[in-house]
Amino acid sequence: MSEAKKIRIAIDAMGGDYAPFSAVAGTVLAQKTYGDKIKLVLVGDQARIESELKNLNAGDLPIEIVPSAQVIGMAEEPVESIRKKPDSSIAVALNLQKNGQADAFISAGNTGAVMAASLIILGRLQAVSRPAIGAFFPTERGAAIVLDVGANSDCKAQNLYQFGLMGSIYFSKIFGNENPKVGLLSIGEEQSKGNELTIASHKLLSAGDLNFTGNIEGQDILKGKADVIICDGFVGNIILKFAESIDSFLGELVRRQVRVNLLAKIGALLLKPAFKDLKKNLDYAEYGGAPLLGINGISIICHGRSSPKAIKNAVGMAVTMVEKEINHLIEARLAANGSFVPSEVKQKQ
Amino acid sequence: MSEAKKIRIAIDAMGGDYAPFSAVAGTVLAQKTYGDKIKLVLVGDQARIESELKNLNAGDLPIEIVPSAQVIGMAEEPVESIRKKPDSSIAVALNLQKNGQADAFISAGNTGAVMAASLIILGRLQAVSRPAIGAFFPTERGAAIVLDVGANSDCKAQNLYQFGLMGSIYFSKIFGNENPKVGLLSIGEEQSKGNELTIASHKLLSAGDLNFTGNIEGQDILKGKADVIICDGFVGNIILKFAESIDSFLGELVRRQVRVNLLAKIGALLLKPAFKDLKKNLDYAEYGGAPLLGINGISIICHGRSSPKAIKNAVGMAVTMVEKEINHLIEARLAANGSFVPSEVKQKQ
Repeated sequence: MSEAKKIRIAIDAMGGDYAPFSAVAGTVLAQKTYGDKIKLVLVGDQARIESELKNLNAGDLPIEIVPSAQVIGMAEEPVESIRKKPDSSIAVALNLQKNGQADAFISAGNTGAVMAASLIILGRLQAVSRPAIGAFFPTERGAAIVLDVGANSDCKAQNLYQFGLMGSIYFSKIFGNENPKVGLLSIGEEQSKGNELTIASHKLLSAGDLNFTGNIEGQDILKGKADVIICDGFVGNIILKFAESIDSFLGELVRRQVRVNLLAKIGALLLKPAFKDLKKNLDYAEYGGAPLLGINGISIICHGRSSPKAIKNAVGMAVTMVEKEINHLIEARLAANGSFVPSEVKQKQ
Repeated sequence: MSEAKKIRIAIDAMGGDYAPFSAVAGTVLAQKTYGDKIKLVLVGDQARIESELKNLNAGDLPIEIVPSAQVIGMAEEPVESIRKKPDSSIAVALNLQKNGQADAFISAGNTGAVMAASLIILGRLQAVSRPAIGAFFPTERGAAIVLDVGANSDCKAQNLYQFGLMGSIYFSKIFGNENPKVGLLSIGEEQSKGNELTIASHKLLSAGDLNFTGNIEGQDILKGKADVIICDGFVGNIILKFAESIDSFLGELVRRQVRVNLLAKIGALLLKPAFKDLKKNLDYAEYGGAPLLGINGISIICHGRSSPKAIKNAVGMAVTMVEKEINHLIEARLAANGSFVPSEVKQKQ
């Protein structure tokens, strides 16, 4: 495949709790997995990246390094840090995409900074009022995408409608399910139940052309009652963080039991492979990362604790997003819906 | 103990998925547990209650029956059903309390109807702007109370402040912890993080006299970072329902593993007693029910699927609320805080 046709992905080498190791090792894994069809670019401290590549015996792989001199810490104030550090790995990598030298961006760094920089540097897609972060949740039937999980604390009904539209397109292209069910996260199934936001959103969604299945409740998420679950970023973020904490809570309870009970200990050993499979079902790394949907480009936010495997899977996610032209589809669908999701969106542009 | 000094508790025999069995069996269990110090009153269909008591060989226990002719179904519209059915078991039982013939009310029936009827019949405590439902969550350190979990979808900062105050008093009297930590459920630890409601609430809580530990995030709930967790009833209800669904989700995943793996099956058998203890940790029945805090009386809402044990534990909860004079403490503390949680509350009365 010619260099020009390859899918070019810029990866933030300096972001995440295990930087630069996880990003570099994940990039190596991805290069070996996807080979010829991708061109990977690691952005960050050149000497440290080269040293990690050497440790991994990966010096011969066709991975490019673009140096950047600054790093945005995990706890830094997002907008402020973007302004103060124009040569951060996040900004440099996103500018590659802006200038046409990359098709996608992946980072396990400061979520707020990645989000803010993506918005500032790449901008929004035309007609999208608020980009949203989509996160996969495991369900009894497979997986669901929940959005927004943190980009927008206070939302309007139009925003939630657009989350549903973007999530539907994304879900259908990732899983090959052409008509995913869209559920509005609320309290109570009736359209009159919920808060001011969900009651207004229910009306908009009922009038729209998504496969809207109505309100779903907290207990319906893991049951897989909807494929695309929409909510404001405040509720979505709390549910996501709560869900991510269940694993360690259960682990702690099981450890306490096993400590005082020998038979339980033997049982736990025999069940270990099954637990491992179970954990895999709950593991965010299986999904790679959370896409920031609605920006004029591709930006995938990975967990700060991302393993190399998670980074590799995020590369796979980026490849799918480029190949399936997700952004083009979102724009086309929003343009067709112009008369329906109206004034507020137009005013904001 | 003289009849007059006994704690009198009215129990809705007709509410819940297993009515009247669960309520009657739970009442019998409670009578045997608390004996002389309580007087229990079952409200509902006299013939069915008598028949259940007979099946349980409990005809000799000093349990009173107050007949009521109507039943509010689990799916009926709350306010409408209260208006249309003045002789429902819920209304009759609450009127016993209003007229001084009972000190507390317990129901596993229609949550919305119990809430609406409690407000209509008993009213609010002076200075409480919005009553809230508090639910216990298990944590790595014991238990936390989350409120509101469903009474108020849209809240103001003053409401959340009062939830924190009521929750603190309740938690301290139930667990004997005089200075429980109050956490504001939000996204991000900094006071500037969250939505409009939490940012305003953070200011109010910081200025107040509760043991406020600042914002907590979704992952902090099960870690036990706060004893009293405050949020609006929309967020709280979604988190509660999500948490209640984890058990069946994990059960389903484990069943799938065990089906295909013999060693895992043996392991699961050996681990069974440990799993049982684990389940107990996650079981709402251990806590009995969720109190509706802020009303001028005592009303405890039990899960629709409540077992007799859950009803029995709710009776224990009611006894504690009466003995510790929770409502008196809430009123006293709010009166002392009069200058601080001000105009909005006063206007609403």
